[in-house]
Formats: sequence, C-alpha cells, structure tokens
Amino acid sequence: MRYEELSDEPCSITRALVLLGDRWTLLILKTAFAGIRRFNGFQGVLGISRSRLLDRLDRLVAHGILVKRTPESGGAHEEYRLTEKGHEVYPILMALRDWGDAHLAPDGPPIHYLHDGCGGEARVHLRCDGCAAELTARDITLQAGPGFPVPS
Amino acid sequence: MRYEELSDEPCSITRALVLLGDRWTLLILKTAFAGIRRFNGFQGVLGISRSRLLDRLDRLVAHGILVKRTPESGGAHEEYRLTEKGHEVYPILMALRDWGDAHLAPDGPPIHYLHDGCGGEARVHLRCDGCAAELTARDITLQAGPGFPVPS
Repeated sequence: MRYEELSDEPCSITRALVLLGDRWTLLILKTAFAGIRRFNGFQGVLGISRSRLLDRLDRLVAHGILVKRTPESGGAHEEYRLTEKGHEVYPILMALRDWGDAHLAPDGPPIHYLHDGCGGEARVHLRCDGCAAELTARDITLQAGPGFPVPS
Repeated sequence: MRYEELSDEPCSITRALVLLGDRWTLLILKTAFAGIRRFNGFQGVLGISRSRLLDRLDRLVAHGILVKRTPESGGAHEEYRLTEKGHEVYPILMALRDWGDAHLAPDGPPIHYLHDGCGGEARVHLRCDGCAAELTARDITLQAGPGFPVPS
C-alpha cells in the first residue's frame, strides 16, 4: 500500500494525517497561526527548502486550508491566509503543545497560550459530549459510523 | 537549519512535531491504540516497509512512548506497548479525528468514539482553564513562559 492510498481508509485520523501529517505541514500551519503570511516569511522562520515549501503551500491551498491572495495593503507579494477550515486545525496544534509542555519542556512551558478574556491558560480536553466527563483512551469504545463502508 | 534542530526551538508544538510529526509515527501510535502490539501486526495494517517501521518503533521506545517487552502470555514475539507518556498522545489523535470527521468524511464519521460510561461521543475541546470558556485561535494571546530562553 502506498502512503497516499491510506486516505481511502475508513478512519478520520488516518485521512487527516495523510493530508497534514508530513514533517512540515503542521509546522507551516503553526507558523501561519503565528501571523506569518508571505512565502519568504515561512522560509525564513522554518529554514525549509523553497521547493518543499512551495509544494506544501500549494497542497494546503488546493485543499482549502490556506488561501493565496494579494494583500489588502496592495503589496507586491501574495499572502497565504488561513481559511476557516485552516483555523479549525488549531486544536490539533494545541494538543501537540499540551503533550510537548508535559514531556519536552523540562524548564516549564516556553510559551503560555492565554485566554484574552480572563488570562487563563488554554488547554485541550477530551470530553464526553453526553455527560461532560473528562476521558482518556481507556474510557472509549469504537463503533462503526455512517461513513464506514458496508460490506458488499 | 536542519529539521531536527527545530527541537531546540522554544515551542512545545515544534518539539512535539519533530518527535511525532513524520508521515508514519502518529499512524503507528494510532495503530497501537487500536490494540496492535506486534511488529508484523503494525506492518500488516500499515503497509510500511520493515526498515522504516523498525526505525520508528525504535525511536518511540528510545523516547519512552512505547515499551518493548516479552508478552505476559510467554509468546515468542516481543510486543510494543504504549507507556503512560504514549497514552497521553491520545488527545492529539482525537483532535485529528475531529478535524477529519468535519472535513474529510463526506458520508459522516467512519468511526464513533463513544464513552463507555454513557455512550456519548468523545470530542476534543479547547477550553480556558480559568473560566472554562470554549476557545479558538482568535481568543488567545501568547506570552513567554518559564521555559523561554532569556536573552544573554
């Protein structure tokens, strides 16, 4: 099986990973959330090769995660902006952050992500939509949903 | 800058991605959460090359995310099991699942993740630890934390 063929798997984790889960794509999106918009900006922050960056940006645009447009200020360089679909990637990055803070930050969190409203720390919680209990993998059972292929 | 050097960045998202964010690692962990424990099991489910799989498993063991051990049943094949650090990767996978369900599952979710206790659906929420408000990227301000390098 080729890696890309995994996107046919009846699993939303796998499908999301085939699209977002290479070494650079989520880093590029993290950089977009940090306010970087121009090609040279991404290149400078990440040190990624130009051809690789162009490939990833093109793919994110093709999938409607970024949109490429002329800046409103009328500048010469086109900008890459997060779409709403792109904005919804944020909890994935915050879940990575929580895990990194817990396991890869021996001196404490390098960065706090604070709620503008009250200054509290933003954290990811896996919760039950029914009873609001906080869940871990051990509390969960899988069941086929409407998108699971019916055996023919 | 080489990709691996990014793990020195004062950013827990970046550090987590350098460790987990290649094309295969989170897929391997997803497969471990699905109960696969043996090398051939991972290989069969994912169709990954044996050398690449061994490389990724070794790295996950070296970082304490999986542990390699002889099965309690006394079988001949060693097993790879999630450690507690590995178990804590689950919200990352669930955040990917939520995004995949929303954007890559036109026929509805392929799989439901249900709370054993009440049958409700497990979902990731980004919330404020102060006031419990549900947050998006637009509600958050970044601030240097204790792990941010002090300029010398």
